[in-house]
Amino acid sequence: MSYFPNVEKIQYEGPTTENMFAFRHYNPEELVMGKKMKDHLRFAIAYWHTMTQDGSDPFGNPVNQRTWFADTPMQTAKNRVEAFFEICEKLGAEYFCFHDIDIAPEGETLEEFFANIDEITDLIKEKMDQTGIKLLWNTANMFSNPRYINGAASTNNADVYAYAAAQVKKGLDISKKLGGENYVFWGGREGYETLLNTDMKFEQDNIARLFKMAIAYGEKIGHKPQFLLEPKPKEPSKHQYDFDAATTMAFIQHYGLEGDFKLNLEANHATLAGHTFEHEIAVARSYNALGSLDANQGDVLLGWDTDEFPTSIFDTTLALYEVLENGGIAPGGINFDSKVRRSSFEMEDLLLAHIAGMDTYARGLKAAAKLKEDRFFDELKEERYASFKEGIGAKIIKDEEDLESLTEYALGHDHIELKSSHIEYVKSRLNDYLV
Amino acid sequence: MSYFPNVEKIQYEGPTTENMFAFRHYNPEELVMGKKMKDHLRFAIAYWHTMTQDGSDPFGNPVNQRTWFADTPMQTAKNRVEAFFEICEKLGAEYFCFHDIDIAPEGETLEEFFANIDEITDLIKEKMDQTGIKLLWNTANMFSNPRYINGAASTNNADVYAYAAAQVKKGLDISKKLGGENYVFWGGREGYETLLNTDMKFEQDNIARLFKMAIAYGEKIGHKPQFLLEPKPKEPSKHQYDFDAATTMAFIQHYGLEGDFKLNLEANHATLAGHTFEHEIAVARSYNALGSLDANQGDVLLGWDTDEFPTSIFDTTLALYEVLENGGIAPGGINFDSKVRRSSFEMEDLLLAHIAGMDTYARGLKAAAKLKEDRFFDELKEERYASFKEGIGAKIIKDEEDLESLTEYALGHDHIELKSSHIEYVKSRLNDYLV
Amino acid sequence: MSYFPNVEKIQYEGPTTENMFAFRHYNPEELVMGKKMKDHLRFAIAYWHTMTQDGSDPFGNPVNQRTWFADTPMQTAKNRVEAFFEICEKLGAEYFCFHDIDIAPEGETLEEFFANIDEITDLIKEKMDQTGIKLLWNTANMFSNPRYINGAASTNNADVYAYAAAQVKKGLDISKKLGGENYVFWGGREGYETLLNTDMKFEQDNIARLFKMAIAYGEKIGHKPQFLLEPKPKEPSKHQYDFDAATTMAFIQHYGLEGDFKLNLEANHATLAGHTFEHEIAVARSYNALGSLDANQGDVLLGWDTDEFPTSIFDTTLALYEVLENGGIAPGGINFDSKVRRSSFEMEDLLLAHIAGMDTYARGLKAAAKLKEDRFFDELKEERYASFKEGIGAKIIKDEEDLESLTEYALGHDHIELKSSHIEYVKSRLNDYLV
Amino acid sequence: MSYFPNVEKIQYEGPTTENMFAFRHYNPEELVMGKKMKDHLRFAIAYWHTMTQDGSDPFGNPVNQRTWFADTPMQTAKNRVEAFFEICEKLGAEYFCFHDIDIAPEGETLEEFFANIDEITDLIKEKMDQTGIKLLWNTANMFSNPRYINGAASTNNADVYAYAAAQVKKGLDISKKLGGENYVFWGGREGYETLLNTDMKFEQDNIARLFKMAIAYGEKIGHKPQFLLEPKPKEPSKHQYDFDAATTMAFIQHYGLEGDFKLNLEANHATLAGHTFEHEIAVARSYNALGSLDANQGDVLLGWDTDEFPTSIFDTTLALYEVLENGGIAPGGINFDSKVRRSSFEMEDLLLAHIAGMDTYARGLKAAAKLKEDRFFDELKEERYASFKEGIGAKIIKDEEDLESLTEYALGHDHIELKSSHIEYVKSRLNDYLV
Repeated sequence: MSYFPNVEKIQYEGPTTENMFAFRHYNPEELVMGKKMKDHLRFAIAYWHTMTQDGSDPFGNPVNQRTWFADTPMQTAKNRVEAFFEICEKLGAEYFCFHDIDIAPEGETLEEFFANIDEITDLIKEKMDQTGIKLLWNTANMFSNPRYINGAASTNNADVYAYAAAQVKKGLDISKKLGGENYVFWGGREGYETLLNTDMKFEQDNIARLFKMAIAYGEKIGHKPQFLLEPKPKEPSKHQYDFDAATTMAFIQHYGLEGDFKLNLEANHATLAGHTFEHEIAVARSYNALGSLDANQGDVLLGWDTDEFPTSIFDTTLALYEVLENGGIAPGGINFDSKVRRSSFEMEDLLLAHIAGMDTYARGLKAAAKLKEDRFFDELKEERYASFKEGIGAKIIKDEEDLESLTEYALGHDHIELKSSHIEYVKSRLNDYLV
Repeated sequence: MSYFPNVEKIQYEGPTTENMFAFRHYNPEELVMGKKMKDHLRFAIAYWHTMTQDGSDPFGNPVNQRTWFADTPMQTAKNRVEAFFEICEKLGAEYFCFHDIDIAPEGETLEEFFANIDEITDLIKEKMDQTGIKLLWNTANMFSNPRYINGAASTNNADVYAYAAAQVKKGLDISKKLGGENYVFWGGREGYETLLNTDMKFEQDNIARLFKMAIAYGEKIGHKPQFLLEPKPKEPSKHQYDFDAATTMAFIQHYGLEGDFKLNLEANHATLAGHTFEHEIAVARSYNALGSLDANQGDVLLGWDTDEFPTSIFDTTLALYEVLENGGIAPGGINFDSKVRRSSFEMEDLLLAHIAGMDTYARGLKAAAKLKEDRFFDELKEERYASFKEGIGAKIIKDEEDLESLTEYALGHDHIELKSSHIEYVKSRLNDYLV
Repeated sequence: MSYFPNVEKIQYEGPTTENMFAFRHYNPEELVMGKKMKDHLRFAIAYWHTMTQDGSDPFGNPVNQRTWFADTPMQTAKNRVEAFFEICEKLGAEYFCFHDIDIAPEGETLEEFFANIDEITDLIKEKMDQTGIKLLWNTANMFSNPRYINGAASTNNADVYAYAAAQVKKGLDISKKLGGENYVFWGGREGYETLLNTDMKFEQDNIARLFKMAIAYGEKIGHKPQFLLEPKPKEPSKHQYDFDAATTMAFIQHYGLEGDFKLNLEANHATLAGHTFEHEIAVARSYNALGSLDANQGDVLLGWDTDEFPTSIFDTTLALYEVLENGGIAPGGINFDSKVRRSSFEMEDLLLAHIAGMDTYARGLKAAAKLKEDRFFDELKEERYASFKEGIGAKIIKDEEDLESLTEYALGHDHIELKSSHIEYVKSRLNDYLV
Repeated sequence: MSYFPNVEKIQYEGPTTENMFAFRHYNPEELVMGKKMKDHLRFAIAYWHTMTQDGSDPFGNPVNQRTWFADTPMQTAKNRVEAFFEICEKLGAEYFCFHDIDIAPEGETLEEFFANIDEITDLIKEKMDQTGIKLLWNTANMFSNPRYINGAASTNNADVYAYAAAQVKKGLDISKKLGGENYVFWGGREGYETLLNTDMKFEQDNIARLFKMAIAYGEKIGHKPQFLLEPKPKEPSKHQYDFDAATTMAFIQHYGLEGDFKLNLEANHATLAGHTFEHEIAVARSYNALGSLDANQGDVLLGWDTDEFPTSIFDTTLALYEVLENGGIAPGGINFDSKVRRSSFEMEDLLLAHIAGMDTYARGLKAAAKLKEDRFFDELKEERYASFKEGIGAKIIKDEEDLESLTEYALGHDHIELKSSHIEYVKSRLNDYLV
């Protein structure tokens, strides 16, 4: 049985095709800088947006037309597994990601929830074995249930903390079972609604405590995925602790977690924090902490998380340039944390939207590779920083100078010649790489 | 000779006075929680906004009417010293702050600049001795001169780096000469206009390198002010590296500067970064890094640094509550990094605006003290986090639990009772403290 | 039967009461400038936030504890009527507002929906007669149902347009039945997700067309409420046509609707559009179009509609000053378009939050009245614009000058004396009115 | 004598050229949709950014290296005329724009200012006659001089109003002398710093009054340029009255100025108001009020007017699509209200930056033309609104329906079939036009 009976596996047909159900730019086996596009991009499909998002918004009822609903939550969950792997296969995506509650109903008790998870992950494992599709990362949803109203690891209620810990343990057990390559924490409720009633330090200590328990448990069971922490500045919380990449690195360093944690960065979270996506990636790289990417885009004129499928070739080019600079994104990947717009409510929009996103990333990859091959940025920067390659500059870099010696130097070199950046020319040239 | 011949020393006259040149709320000797208001607040006057700001804006010419201009830059500089100390004395402010170029003309050469600084700081020292007014902090302006177009410590030009180092050395020499209690770095050009031409990691390494030279030099000359780093997200740069308190702490930890650096936090910089002022202070406190405060306020509907004199009693109350929680702000202080609006261009507005700011902080202090004395927040939080005082909560805090033990606990405690925050009531009550 | 058995009618107990269920500032019968507070403020309770909001958010499930749910939607709807009037009475609010779908289930067909509305409005009418509580305004919800995905009056689907028209007709029939004093249009989906697929002019023509049908129908049935149009810049749409007060006035004038339409202004919509609430009210007043107010507040650091209960006495003072200037708000009122924060999920929070809002508006009213009585702004402005009272200024105002005569004048008066605004002093003085 | 001796007239050399001083995309004589590119685009050079901008910013001193400075202001002004026309000619721009103070020193008196203007405009006229370059528009700078601190037409000082009127008269006299095709008003100070001291209605009446004087004077001297009003939401004012296109249309309609005024729209002003550039153009078009365009771009992550040279081909494509829909922009044009970044401080950057901007617009034009020719948007919209072409939809458009007839229709047609927008696919396809 198929959920998309009218659509075959999506093929690359090139930029001129009029077939909506074809890749115009993404050609998985095509070599770019000597590596297959699919191995550069490591695309993953997100279970939540794809399988459980219903098209509602704060002012609107559900609208998405989905054909997997059955009489019981468990049967619906099983249908979703079928449909999901059909989507991954038809798109040719080799990875996927999920929260625990995406795949299995929470039930009435924690015990029942765990049993549901076990049953569904058996099914998922079977599909993985059949298809070769792999788990990029999983995570525990510790923000939707009312119990998490005041946070999970940062909750003011010790019983809630215990519940969260149980979800994390189960998450790691699943990760081991399914061979997850990474494990993500996103703290949507780890923050505050108002400082008036919040002890920020206490809450952050407790978050770090849970992370350490997770590291310890992973070691105990002999399964060590790359732990990833995902920054977001706000929404649903008024303030979320892991505001952006740099804030998250402050936390990670403060609690001595550098060895175990890297960052899972999302484009729309970057814009909500007042940054570009490439900025966040560059920050992560400067701390040697680039983990994985959540691909989507926000609307810079809107102040909430729209999680649109990425269609800006400008943005994907700059993001993927950083990935190339990083020597690749593995063991992370590019996960479509993107949802169809409310007006794209038909089943087949799930495929069309992913095709759009994958094509946009494919174009970004090709442009970024060309930038690297032409050494566009490399040469720009080499020339720009040349003064630190010799003379006083080289000595500064070698830590051979101090304030006194530099003062002496400066007194003799205080009329300094500057060079224009010709930045308008540079930006205009960049456009030529976007084609 | 007086620059404000018609205004006497400003006195406290109480809230009903109609005298514009009187404090309505700030009463320096009045005890609040057993300490004089002036010792809580440690007000400082900023040399730049007070003495050199001319009222121009990106679309407007200078407008401020100032009576200290003389035939030569040095005579103007000397007149400014006279006028400045008259202002400090008339306001009863016991501290001040300055950049090197605020006090002395840059001249044609670095040597001349240093000579000018020496001459003017002699005069300043004399005035300090006469009046008892103290130096809260000084800093080097490494952003206005064209040479700093691409940064100072983060410049791409090694000669510029040397020049900056010379200014820092001189800044520390002055700090020693004048007994400065803190020394500030604000990196207005330490950031990027575009990532296209920027090597972020290289630049940040160089910034840390300069800071380490400063620490070493301070030790060498036997003068160790508290070093302070001031976050700001942008302006003049498109992106400034020290985006906010947390970002700055990531940097400080990464380069091992925790022992020597704390934060100088500014209200308007907080809002530009998408935070409240009290948030930034709370973040600094959670890293034990609250150094000093730059008092002003921004306009949340505007996207640039307006540096208005603070007039929001709501904001100052929450900021000073954090200061009280911190056990005070010393050796930092509250520095009015505020400029008169362009339409307040008369000499006497310099006094009126500071009176407004000092009264606003005085009201905030009294409200914050009452909150502490009534234990308004304390009780709220104690009740809220009570579950971590006993049982499973207490064991979590003592690090006696792990994922497995908590899972076992959670399986038996998965129906959790939540309590309302009554947050609307809480916020409404807070208003009663603002009077 | 009572839904709040432990709470009596809320009484004014004064600012020092520790009783949470009491007004500390709102004293309905107290005279302010010779008029009862309740007649100044004309408080209305919003059916939607109070009765149907469930505490969910884009990342969280419903959390609100509500005791009116029954076995059938119609019985729940009837219980809600009981509970709602209990709330209004206990708060002493004399007005209320609703959308059609707030009060009655939509059913399977439009016919069934209308029948449900008829049955429930009979019940509502009965309660209105018993209690004396009046209908400030009603409206049709033409944004939540999936059919409105692309707009109601601006839809691209003619059948949807017809459906919307039917809802408006029914809305006016109800308005007549219940004696509604105003009728509101808020176009949450009247806008666009992307200009790529939108014909803005066509859609706006259709909106105006529907408004004219509504005016005509009101005249036909002999019921003419004040029509109100409510600006909002975005959310749920990417762009909503009635961006702000001024944009809405451009539309109203363009289609010749000035005689029939005024504005319903909301505080949080103002901030989302980049304005203060008092700005929007002042704009409406300058077009003689101030209709009614939706009282709430946003969080200026968040980019979505938080619809918090108002707790800023600064904001309500400035808003109510404009209302006093306008000679009052009738036939409009002050409607609490506010929802409890997600963490205030208990039944009694519905009362506590309204008490907080009503007290905040009461404080604002008292402060605004004092400003008027002291002529604080009046004198400031009289002095400021004095030059237009005589001489060349008076002749300009009388339209007795032209470019040539003014040029001649200016050639002889080109050295102009300016006066400082002392704006920092002014702002600081304003604080003294907030207490 | 040449100011750019090393640069010849810029030629089109095609996309592969490595010559920085060549157009890669702008080919003035090339036909696009049957019209020369230069006639579509009507490029104008802005005198202010090109000739008088010095590279200073709120934290930085002037940096631009300019070779036209002479011993006296008038000689500098004359040198600027020479240099300016050399720039226009080398770029092949056929139009230019200026403020009065851009071209001539203000002098000590208004009389002297006028004399300076007369002398310089004689020189400009001579250059215009020699080169065939035309005046797109001029305007009076009524915001930089301190006298305009509280506005020009909205000033609280009648003498200032008279002075402004004199500048407008002179502006119209110059416009006649130089054959200006449009005349612009931009009210940078027409707004408020605080509502506390502002009478918004009074001020707007006075602005309209001045505009009517200008219309009358134009008629009197027999010169009627198209009057243009330029929206901007803020900066330098906290709030500028002409917030955006729609707000400005509300004003224009309210004062009955529709027959004489259209809009001059700027890209960066759109983003500051929370809109896209194409939105503002679409709004103007829906009021039949598209006048002219100021080409630049802002940085959506910054909250001030950066006035960058346009380099986003995505933005120019959508803007020019609206221009094509409008049947062209004449008598308006595309004026580069753009300034070189501070780091592009060399003389030749003036040419390089304009080349970048002109190429970006050229690419946008070609993409927009292809969209028109392929009927990409046209077909999308035709299909989308098809239901209004027949049946009930057609009758609605013909005003043959009312609320009652539509209700009757809706009762029989309440199960409505919706169609997906496939918006992700649409956006992805748009990319294919950008190449």
